[in-house]
Amino acid sequence: MAPQAAEPQASSPVRVALLGCGNVGGALAELLMARQDDIAARTGMRLELVGIAVADINRPRPSTIPVALFETDSAALAVRADVDIVVELIGGIHPAHELIESALRAGKPVVTANKAVLAASGAELADLAAAHGVDLLYEAAVAGAIPVIRPLRESLAGEQILRVMGIVNGTTNFILTRMEDDGVDFDDALAEAQELGLAERDPTADVEGHDAAAKAAILAALAFGSDVVDADVHREGISGIKAADVAYANRLGYSVKLLAIAELVDGGPELSVRVHPAMVPTSHPLASVRGAFNAVFIEGAVSGELMLYGRGAGGGPTASAVLGDLVDAARNLRAGAPGPAPKRTSITVRPQPELRSAFYLSMDVADRPGVLAAVAKVFGDHQVSIRAMEQVGLADEARLIFLTHLAREGDLLATIDDLRLLQAVDRVSGVLRVIGVGEE
Amino acid sequence: MAPQAAEPQASSPVRVALLGCGNVGGALAELLMARQDDIAARTGMRLELVGIAVADINRPRPSTIPVALFETDSAALAVRADVDIVVELIGGIHPAHELIESALRAGKPVVTANKAVLAASGAELADLAAAHGVDLLYEAAVAGAIPVIRPLRESLAGEQILRVMGIVNGTTNFILTRMEDDGVDFDDALAEAQELGLAERDPTADVEGHDAAAKAAILAALAFGSDVVDADVHREGISGIKAADVAYANRLGYSVKLLAIAELVDGGPELSVRVHPAMVPTSHPLASVRGAFNAVFIEGAVSGELMLYGRGAGGGPTASAVLGDLVDAARNLRAGAPGPAPKRTSITVRPQPELRSAFYLSMDVADRPGVLAAVAKVFGDHQVSIRAMEQVGLADEARLIFLTHLAREGDLLATIDDLRLLQAVDRVSGVLRVIGVGEE
Repeated sequence: MAPQAAEPQASSPVRVALLGCGNVGGALAELLMARQDDIAARTGMRLELVGIAVADINRPRPSTIPVALFETDSAALAVRADVDIVVELIGGIHPAHELIESALRAGKPVVTANKAVLAASGAELADLAAAHGVDLLYEAAVAGAIPVIRPLRESLAGEQILRVMGIVNGTTNFILTRMEDDGVDFDDALAEAQELGLAERDPTADVEGHDAAAKAAILAALAFGSDVVDADVHREGISGIKAADVAYANRLGYSVKLLAIAELVDGGPELSVRVHPAMVPTSHPLASVRGAFNAVFIEGAVSGELMLYGRGAGGGPTASAVLGDLVDAARNLRAGAPGPAPKRTSITVRPQPELRSAFYLSMDVADRPGVLAAVAKVFGDHQVSIRAMEQVGLADEARLIFLTHLAREGDLLATIDDLRLLQAVDRVSGVLRVIGVGEE
Repeated sequence: MAPQAAEPQASSPVRVALLGCGNVGGALAELLMARQDDIAARTGMRLELVGIAVADINRPRPSTIPVALFETDSAALAVRADVDIVVELIGGIHPAHELIESALRAGKPVVTANKAVLAASGAELADLAAAHGVDLLYEAAVAGAIPVIRPLRESLAGEQILRVMGIVNGTTNFILTRMEDDGVDFDDALAEAQELGLAERDPTADVEGHDAAAKAAILAALAFGSDVVDADVHREGISGIKAADVAYANRLGYSVKLLAIAELVDGGPELSVRVHPAMVPTSHPLASVRGAFNAVFIEGAVSGELMLYGRGAGGGPTASAVLGDLVDAARNLRAGAPGPAPKRTSITVRPQPELRSAFYLSMDVADRPGVLAAVAKVFGDHQVSIRAMEQVGLADEARLIFLTHLAREGDLLATIDDLRLLQAVDRVSGVLRVIGVGEE
């Protein structure tokens, strides 16, 4: 066999500073300790942890991490002369944003898992990194261990992406899976998720879709070269979803999933970026993503349908993704050239009411003659065409379930407003978009 | 916003030679023509096709490809001075191997989709590429458009891979899906695949697992840094699978899939690399991979379970993967540094009879007293422990279906040999390994 290529100075290690040592940071530090020799053998580079910035130096940490590495001055560590690469795992906007910025300005590549900073200021930081000729890598910021960022950035570099749809929040997918499997209510499923440590005590960021919206913005920026930020993302959560609607959806051949969607509207150039629960046909690969797992489904003009699936959270999986980036950043540093930084353009986001979608609606009405005609008239008045209707008998009233053809969201919302004005309609609930209807 | 980084001499194009212009080559040439401006805008590099080597210059080609590009001297084109990158899409061992070799020796990065060459001589060619400081990229060689090679090479660079299991042959997955969905026999499903253009007239390479074995070798080499070649891969095809066994498997909660598996045995260091049909629990993500789709399921020590899913074949999807590599190779060329070339070690492959697996067996026996006892004794004699048994009544005989606990393959084979010696046993068929039993 021919000899291996010359090793990039295997003797001098790549010196890594770690900002933050929580769940993910701790796992990364342990991983770097445990796998240092193996990584050196496989990549020809020795990654050496030279400092870990933490808020409280006395908190108990894994015993494999040398105590001497800990310090409290994160701002100093981020720019220290003996640091080659900075890994930011503090999370939240401040001081993470400022630390990333100062590291980049000091010419140090940055690896981060910080979706909040990236969703708010990703474009600005990417420009800063490019201006200083260093990497800003963030595979772990979306869907944990699943390689999503790298395929979008590199494998699909020559591809025209048409749509990205992701189940990017494990907490809500766990809750929806529990509701589907056992018919439990949202509140009970949430309580179970909290008990298992899958949901925070204040679950707002997850269940109201804020976490997914940040990831949607990052995916949209990468897939479409857009400068979308999280504030541009239309967002609906899952707290209003009833177990009955999940059961009806299931009976109709759908699973209810919270999706983060970024897509070209009508082939472009306008974009839609949004987070909302949706009915996904059970034959669709996303429907098979269950429990706390994540997946990102990508439709390319030439590559067709791709799906990337795996663990979207957890210290270990997330640390593994950070480590992949770290190896990459180290290699690029040795090669003297940062990795690809895709161009961006300013893309218009089409307003949500202008989008077209198929809808599921359930409503409770008085069970008497003429009600269906009145309800159907409201749909017709707003040019919303009904694809299927079913009546489910309840005690003293009836529940009507409608599936519509593609309709303008604005028209559907006006329909719902008018339905609520009908005396015979007690409640309109369970409004869900349906994926895979009327699409090419 | 800060300005973008300096563009790498956007004015001088990266000159690409294409060897072969069949299904994939034609799609790539059209893609390069159609998306040249867009790729330049997104990556800052203009990819220019400067020559296409074909066997017959007069064959009709897509009209968007300039006729002046075609020529017949592939050996000359592969080393031509005005060529920066060579894309090999001829397929087969000869002359593809020699062309790749001479291009690498001439210091030109090579992008290829040639699984045959890589499975037979991947290590040797990777060494040659490394020795000349250029890239050898082959994302399209395994699972078409699905990013598999890059995640294994880069995203998981710091990860210890425990197992890779892939559905990497669309033809056999289509056939098995048809058998499962409609109970059709293997021969009918194959005929249907041939009619649809999903199977060759001579389907041996697909249905006997040769194609999957080549891909298993490539995956094993990459995931474990091993020098496994296709000849090392234990291989069983699907032509012996009966519709009845697929139906029984289904009723027991399994889908039958042809899997390419590369894994550390008992945590390593020995490896097992094999291709065989297997029963996959319907709850496993691989069971949801249907029709001609492909998927690769990866288990990492820290990242957990990942699955990469998409179109594994077809001109467009494969060309899209080649284009991703081409952009990568062009970028590395501009940066003056090839991408990562993982280290290799010589790893022992554990002989197939030494592996442990759970098995499904079906056999037709005479329906009379004492037969089951005789059959059960044979299992016991060989230390194969039975997990479940079911008897299905047939006309004048009985069909017995067994699921075993984990057993040595050698013991199972000896069991089958002895069962066939029993007078009451007419036929032992449907021997399938069962995935997901007795694993940690």
